[in-house]
Formats: sequence, structure tokens, C-alpha cells
Amino acid sequence: MQVAVNEAIKAGERDSVPVGAVIVFENKIIASAGNEVLKNHDATAHAEILAIRGACNVLQTTVLNECDMYVTLEPCAMCAQAISLARIRRLYFGAYDEKYGGVMHGAHVFRYALHKPEIIGGVSETQCADILKDFFEQKR
Amino acid sequence: MQVAVNEAIKAGERDSVPVGAVIVFENKIIASAGNEVLKNHDATAHAEILAIRGACNVLQTTVLNECDMYVTLEPCAMCAQAISLARIRRLYFGAYDEKYGGVMHGAHVFRYALHKPEIIGGVSETQCADILKDFFEQKR
Repeated sequence: MQVAVNEAIKAGERDSVPVGAVIVFENKIIASAGNEVLKNHDATAHAEILAIRGACNVLQTTVLNECDMYVTLEPCAMCAQAISLARIRRLYFGAYDEKYGGVMHGAHVFRYALHKPEIIGGVSETQCADILKDFFEQKR
Repeated sequence: MQVAVNEAIKAGERDSVPVGAVIVFENKIIASAGNEVLKNHDATAHAEILAIRGACNVLQTTVLNECDMYVTLEPCAMCAQAISLARIRRLYFGAYDEKYGGVMHGAHVFRYALHKPEIIGGVSETQCADILKDFFEQKR
């Protein structure tokens, strides 16, 4: 999760919402990314989507069923469904997101998805939440 | 919708699930794409995601609030949330998808999303559905 946290911090430094994600395969990090929505002019460039695309590319597959994801924030509905489509095995996330989250909140995507990963929320929660809180406080 | 249908047919020809999407801005098509999940080794490469990325790139923005999307199949939860994040104005889709759809079925993403487009389902429905039916019948 610390690598994901570092990706989040880097995303904040380039003025994107500070969220970071990492994908692990056989105890090695094979993809990591921070949110690049604004940097890339791409509404879909959430950290999780970029990490999934990276991991699919590294393993040359669309099925990441032996991979785990670490992400600093509860994924939105787009990312939750992407995690399901990619058949990620375990999802570890940091802060809960009551407003935009699609895992424990809102659309509760995994209730309806064909593949549901094992889910562990609240990992390094305070640290992950503080990065977001500090970012939005500085924006005011 | 006919351009989206053509994208769907082309996707089928490269052995991907035949779904196509088009984005229109000021009466002009600015992005079109077919499903490239298998071709690209990318679990997130649904036609809608690729079209949104294309349109964001063309307009150099993350906000497509004067754009309409035409897609041959009801979007899944990932694509529905992407459509919301990109603030697409109107969503026209062809066939309904009881199993994987996230708009009228399953997670009903727009019930919870901050931005909800105007939605027109069932456009050229039979034609769009037949392309998928024929594809999966050939696969058996």
C-alpha cells in the first residue's frame, strides 16, 4: 500500500486528485499508477484503470485472476466493474468514499458483477484519507 | 448509430465481442471505436471507454457535456460510470443487456451517479442485437 500512497502523492503534485493504485502478481509489483485524469485529458484515467491496463499489458492477458490490487481510495463504479472484468483476485483499499465509492456505497457494483474479488477495506485508512483531505483543503 | 454498428461488425471480424460506439459533437463524429478487449490485451478496452478517451483527446478536455454517445449495446457498469464521469449529454444505445448491462439492469449506475445523461434505449435494437447473436452462435 505504501507504493500506492506514493503514487497518490505524485498525482497530487501534478494537481490531479491524489489516488494511487498498484497491482501485485507473484509477490511482485507489475503495475502502478496515479490518477491522471487532468494530466491526460482523459475522464477514464483513474489510477485503477491505468494499473489494470498496465498489468494486462505486462502479462499479455485480459485475465488478472492471480493478481491483487492495492488502491488508496474505495474504487468508483467504473473502476469496480473494471476490477471485476479483469477478475482481480483481491482488492485492498485505503479510505472509504461515501460520496463516489461504488464498492461499499452507491451502486454497490460487486453485488451484481459476475466476478467479485475478496475485499479488504480500510488499509492504512487514515494516511490515505489525509492525503485527499490535505489536497482538497489546499484547493479551497 | 449506423457508424457504431459498423464499428461493432469490425470488432466481430477481429474476434472481439461486436460492440461499437460513437461520440458526436456539434453534429460531427469526433470519436468512434469498437471493442478491443482481446486485440489490445486490455480488460478495460470496451468501445465506450475507447470512444470517451478519443473524444477527450480530440477536444483536450475531460468534460464532454456537449457530446452525445451512440453505442450498440447497453453499457456495463464500468462504461456507465465512465459516461457519467465524462458528463456525456445524451446516451443512445441499441440492444438491452439483461445479463451485463449496468444502466437499465444490475447496478443501475445512473441511479447513484452525480451526472446522469438523457438515455434513449432500443435504437436500431434488432440490428444491434442480431450482430451479437450471430457472433455468439458462430462461436458455439
